[in-house]
Amino acid sequence: MHKLVLIRHGESTWNLENRFTGWTDVDLTPTGVSQAMSAGKLLKAEGYEFDIAYTSVLKRAIHTLWYCLDEMDRTWLPVQKSWRLNERHYGALQGLNKGETAKQYGDKQVLVWRRSYDTPPPALEATDPRCERSDARYAGMNPQDIPLTECLKDTVARVLPFWNDTMAPAIRSGQRVVVAAHGNSIRALVKYLDNISDHDIVELNIPNGIPLVYELDDDLKPIRHYYLGDAEAAARAAAAVASQGKA
Amino acid sequence: MHKLVLIRHGESTWNLENRFTGWTDVDLTPTGVSQAMSAGKLLKAEGYEFDIAYTSVLKRAIHTLWYCLDEMDRTWLPVQKSWRLNERHYGALQGLNKGETAKQYGDKQVLVWRRSYDTPPPALEATDPRCERSDARYAGMNPQDIPLTECLKDTVARVLPFWNDTMAPAIRSGQRVVVAAHGNSIRALVKYLDNISDHDIVELNIPNGIPLVYELDDDLKPIRHYYLGDAEAAARAAAAVASQGKA
Repeated sequence: MHKLVLIRHGESTWNLENRFTGWTDVDLTPTGVSQAMSAGKLLKAEGYEFDIAYTSVLKRAIHTLWYCLDEMDRTWLPVQKSWRLNERHYGALQGLNKGETAKQYGDKQVLVWRRSYDTPPPALEATDPRCERSDARYAGMNPQDIPLTECLKDTVARVLPFWNDTMAPAIRSGQRVVVAAHGNSIRALVKYLDNISDHDIVELNIPNGIPLVYELDDDLKPIRHYYLGDAEAAARAAAAVASQGKA
Repeated sequence: MHKLVLIRHGESTWNLENRFTGWTDVDLTPTGVSQAMSAGKLLKAEGYEFDIAYTSVLKRAIHTLWYCLDEMDRTWLPVQKSWRLNERHYGALQGLNKGETAKQYGDKQVLVWRRSYDTPPPALEATDPRCERSDARYAGMNPQDIPLTECLKDTVARVLPFWNDTMAPAIRSGQRVVVAAHGNSIRALVKYLDNISDHDIVELNIPNGIPLVYELDDDLKPIRHYYLGDAEAAARAAAAVASQGKA
């Protein structure tokens, strides 16, 4: 039996400001730092050990991993960063306030952009200063592969190669894996692992900074999954995520 | 022309307590954190960019790299950690106060242990609780390869494979490299790069947290080297390192 631990980054400055973040590289708030440290303390108290850590190329996830590993006294672990674990790209909504966007376009339209499986938000123009195509961290990529917007279906499509080529082989070889990533890159993984329908994934929310443990069999099929620590607190935090996009 | 940047970790708790550290995994002091941040600010102000970072598996170097990269807004860079960049193993002296050890054994003996090229300090017993052979971070190594003590000659011997197999190919391929490491793993690299004699290396000291830039030609031979920032401050800091082992 394998255990895979998934952690959504702690609260970011734009979580706090209720803004659509996507690939914008905002940092953790002090609350986010303390959530990341709590995740590490929980993992340490429960005796978790890891052989490798994966994270995105966005600092709210990277720093969450740092604080978590530091609490575990495991900052020496190998860490691999990949854009494939980035948050879903939020297109032209990146930087906008979620509440104001809901007032302007209506709760329903915003819920579609936030949670529809296959309707992306309006795309960024490639000339928009928010566009990541001139960002040095993506310099090794084909510019055409850097999204201008994504629906969750798009995110699943670019997360899965990382699962298939990197994470799954590591887990199969016996490595104990922890991932610090984002609401939607984790939803993409969970949708695949639990074979959740395009319809049902809309209702799934991932709370910040609470380790989500997947127990996997030898074929990497989930046996069960659970949040570490206080289950009710995790449920409340997930419900809070669900309500963020309302006017 | 290639540029290679070497940074010795910021002040550690045992630098402050004047204790022999070696492979003991002590953290940075607040001064050490601020030295690491200053290194990052300097590198950013001077327009340095990197493609990859290397560090040891000891947190004083890893955290120095983190704070430095964070100041540069480059925490997304790939980071590879290797025990080969660890500090020189200090054997049975690990944990002892440098001044008290000098009082007990004499300045001359301590200077031999600190700076002789080929005389190692007394070895740790493999059964000593300080011995790293049961430390999870070295679990992938042959226990016989985990040192019980090292002279600088030993450190050079285990740093050079990392240079030859990892760093040099990366630099030759055009990657811009930054290394956050330790006084003696950096001395080992510098001795090799500048072809410093076994005799002369004794007098070379590396200050904490000041970026040391090596300009290398296409054959990776040094053209020149210099500390970034205030050259006199770097010289004073190096002199302070030299005087640490005196009673």
